[in-house]
Amino acid sequence: MTVTALPEPALPADLNPILAEACRAASTAARHAWSALDRQARAEEVRMGADGTPTMRIDELVEDAIVAVAEAHRINVLSEEVGFLDHGSARTLVVDPLDGSANAAAGVPLSCFSGALVADGTPVEALTCWLETGRSISARAGVPVTYRTSGRTALAGSALSMLRPKVGARGDTTGVWTALSGRAGRVRILSTSCLESMLVADGSIDAFADPGSDTHRLVDLIAAQLIVPAAGGHVCDAFGRDLDFSHDLTRRYSGVVAASRDLAEEIGALITATI
Amino acid sequence: MTVTALPEPALPADLNPILAEACRAASTAARHAWSALDRQARAEEVRMGADGTPTMRIDELVEDAIVAVAEAHRINVLSEEVGFLDHGSARTLVVDPLDGSANAAAGVPLSCFSGALVADGTPVEALTCWLETGRSISARAGVPVTYRTSGRTALAGSALSMLRPKVGARGDTTGVWTALSGRAGRVRILSTSCLESMLVADGSIDAFADPGSDTHRLVDLIAAQLIVPAAGGHVCDAFGRDLDFSHDLTRRYSGVVAASRDLAEEIGALITATI
Repeated sequence: MTVTALPEPALPADLNPILAEACRAASTAARHAWSALDRQARAEEVRMGADGTPTMRIDELVEDAIVAVAEAHRINVLSEEVGFLDHGSARTLVVDPLDGSANAAAGVPLSCFSGALVADGTPVEALTCWLETGRSISARAGVPVTYRTSGRTALAGSALSMLRPKVGARGDTTGVWTALSGRAGRVRILSTSCLESMLVADGSIDAFADPGSDTHRLVDLIAAQLIVPAAGGHVCDAFGRDLDFSHDLTRRYSGVVAASRDLAEEIGALITATI
Repeated sequence: MTVTALPEPALPADLNPILAEACRAASTAARHAWSALDRQARAEEVRMGADGTPTMRIDELVEDAIVAVAEAHRINVLSEEVGFLDHGSARTLVVDPLDGSANAAAGVPLSCFSGALVADGTPVEALTCWLETGRSISARAGVPVTYRTSGRTALAGSALSMLRPKVGARGDTTGVWTALSGRAGRVRILSTSCLESMLVADGSIDAFADPGSDTHRLVDLIAAQLIVPAAGGHVCDAFGRDLDFSHDLTRRYSGVVAASRDLAEEIGALITATI
């Protein structure tokens, strides 16, 4: 296919400069990987990540670029592949360097930089940027945002994105997946949790869920935890676990990101009852 | 979310000028709808289309722009909403004006212009353009292309896109959907058949299928019928029906678009055996 020049991230002018610099570094590294490496080279598994899943070459390239920004600013990092890097700061840059890694490696143009600044254990500012288009969404704690969720409160007829059905730590999620799909009006699997959360925040879809496979880590959800409630929505774990900041990336969740608290709770209850 | 300026279609210089002009007109009309109308206005059902499904306002705006191009060039049109318009030509512009209409109406940025020029019943040139990024793919009968499918020949472990499971004319496709999903390595539902076919053609995914719901019409598949075989892949109906050119848009198919004939036949056979 014709590949148009991939755009720079379109970021708000008042975004925290560390988040902005980290996102631009991620974008530059990803664009380099797309132009210089073929699919096989991008997808090569180079080591095991801190989250317990393999790190692909494209993950490593993007994360390295972000870590360099954090080091230059002497801020701690918590990231999917390297885990926690203590630079002696009260602030931590928590990032999913390349959400939708499998998309990015294969050439399906749906991948994101997503991160949050955490100060003394509390997220204070968050950004998700869809790398292939440069579109971004951000929020700062306590500051109103201009975007709104759809406000939908019931699953029946809703536009729902999900992770694919699979065998997870609690067993096969196919039954839950089909139960949710059967109630939804529209169903999508984009394979990029952070982009799907952006679409909930701006009202393009009503909800996104991991249907009980406990695939999510904190880094998949932390930006949404600030961005989605600011827009009127709700983020939770389907099984009610706290989504508190922690350095332990082996902790897993089944995230539910929804246009309203009622919708998140209905989806979570259905997952808990069906799995 | 920040919305970057939506790009013009990136089209090859030697593309047939009617296809190029129709695509640019579609892109301009879609961008106007995105900027001037809200979700509700874009999704408003304005009438019943020739394919037997409701026409949304955004479908109508985009199709009207394409039909005007065809009229100016005195070429016939076969399109999802208006059906066949006879302008007394031996050539017909067959188009899905806005593939992924539900995405486009809601603001999920995954929608396409897709069309083919048919001369005396035979497709001679085809184009699909992802409107939100401007990326395009095209093919001309008998002319080699630079892109290739992945070449994958087996479903096990493949990257498979599907239409969502639903109740179709042959009953509930949930069982087929989960049987296919259980064999695939990666599963996606992007809700835009023409973009998913582009991704098969350029090797980003291995296959795309309607798992037996008979949702597809000729306009969803005609561009892929020229583009995907040129790249080494195969396009067929899961139930073996001919995909011949016809003016009858109420004819339905369960399209299978795959990186190889073997893979298409394996998917088709599994759908036929399971439904």
